[in-house]
Amino acid sequence: MSSGLRLAELGELGLLAELERRGLAVRIENDAAELPGGRVVTQDALVEGVHFRLDWLSWRDLGFRAAAVNLSDLAASGAEPDGLVVSLAARSDTAVADVVELYEGFAEAGVPVIGGDTSASERLVLSVTALGRSRRVPGRGGAQPGDVLVVTGALGAAGAAFREERYIRPPLRLEEGRRLARKAHALIDVSDGLARDAGHIAARSGCRLVIDLERVPIAEGAAVEDLAFGEDYELLAAVPEPDGFVEIGRCEDGEGIALLLHGEPYELPGYIHFRA
Amino acid sequence: MSSGLRLAELGELGLLAELERRGLAVRIENDAAELPGGRVVTQDALVEGVHFRLDWLSWRDLGFRAAAVNLSDLAASGAEPDGLVVSLAARSDTAVADVVELYEGFAEAGVPVIGGDTSASERLVLSVTALGRSRRVPGRGGAQPGDVLVVTGALGAAGAAFREERYIRPPLRLEEGRRLARKAHALIDVSDGLARDAGHIAARSGCRLVIDLERVPIAEGAAVEDLAFGEDYELLAAVPEPDGFVEIGRCEDGEGIALLLHGEPYELPGYIHFRA
Repeated sequence: MSSGLRLAELGELGLLAELERRGLAVRIENDAAELPGGRVVTQDALVEGVHFRLDWLSWRDLGFRAAAVNLSDLAASGAEPDGLVVSLAARSDTAVADVVELYEGFAEAGVPVIGGDTSASERLVLSVTALGRSRRVPGRGGAQPGDVLVVTGALGAAGAAFREERYIRPPLRLEEGRRLARKAHALIDVSDGLARDAGHIAARSGCRLVIDLERVPIAEGAAVEDLAFGEDYELLAAVPEPDGFVEIGRCEDGEGIALLLHGEPYELPGYIHFRA
Repeated sequence: MSSGLRLAELGELGLLAELERRGLAVRIENDAAELPGGRVVTQDALVEGVHFRLDWLSWRDLGFRAAAVNLSDLAASGAEPDGLVVSLAARSDTAVADVVELYEGFAEAGVPVIGGDTSASERLVLSVTALGRSRRVPGRGGAQPGDVLVVTGALGAAGAAFREERYIRPPLRLEEGRRLARKAHALIDVSDGLARDAGHIAARSGCRLVIDLERVPIAEGAAVEDLAFGEDYELLAAVPEPDGFVEIGRCEDGEGIALLLHGEPYELPGYIHFRA
């Protein structure tokens, strides 16, 4: 192993800055890659034992989940989906009925599987690319003082389910994403936890995000601590006006984020990529 | 685990047929997915311990390899690449210098990284989507009796290297792919082994592929058995005329493939997805 700085010390945004400075990559922190002509692409790999456990969810739920986490990135780009490309690597003694269920789970997400590949592997690996088109991708860098922060639904359900050693189906917020994308100054899906994802917007936009925790809708069975878990896949947007969405805070001059509970600072355990 | 038929019994093509019959997926056996407007998309996930070992190759070679195996699928689609979307999941104690080397390896493949994501994971997972445009994707289903079979370069090098517990850099055949795609009736990259990939064309085209093994260019240090290993990433095409490429066989009426060595049938150990 090389000596020197570790990812944990540099952090995700630091790594991105380093790669961009060297001309090795661009925009690798966004929810989706943008190509000319309004094309939007997003991808994720789900690896057995790393991202999911088959004793916690069914094959059908796994398929839905693999589709939904990618479609969530399209939603955060205000995109209309075109299709999914799915690569499946599975053990050769996998039951065909299970694989059919997996693809039925994909179908339940409502976007067709238009290509992909299958191969043999000791460990189940599902790679999904979602393709779509967007008229306007707000990104994370445009939030400004005076904006209000809104969310598309209740948070914390994924964290609560995880404590019970199960997963729940992520919501599909494609329509809400397209509606928000028309006017939002910044738009992101809540996959890393509310504080962390708000932090992405604050860092990229160069302003301070203040969240009033008592206004955040909490899913049934969840507690405020579950907001730190992430994987809720609701959308968080900085917008000039709430426009019918639930307002949970605002954008101010400054930097970083402030979590307040009835006006008092509140510490939420944060999940930060590459940091302990 | 469910009872009933296993993937090993159904095989890769059988699984595809079953999913297509149920309307759950289309074209998941092709090298790349096609979208309206000549857009072509391909993806692969490389998982540490499944697809590579870091004691066998450097971070830079891993980056090049992850780019090259995807670009090979674009080459087999006759496509001009637009960019790569790269998602990296790595341990938080990974050295930043190693990650920079990884992305330098991507850069050496000559196609820019235009998006992606990073996250923390105990096991290194690299997901790559390659995006491009093609005027004509030959696919695998158009080979016809009278066609000749050609390859773009020597085979067997990857298998020979693997015996020495190392990997070699796959070739990039994008230009050859575009040249072949203009007229080829079928085009594929040799990733599963010559016999297996020729078998894909035979099965999809409904004809018989005959290969004269003594005409197949064998890489230095490799033996004819190494043709079964795959991962050579040269292109195999069924074309009306060789057009300067190396001719190794022909397409006839019938089905399946025939491997001949100086006119005598020759048994090559085959690598077949999902089959023991």
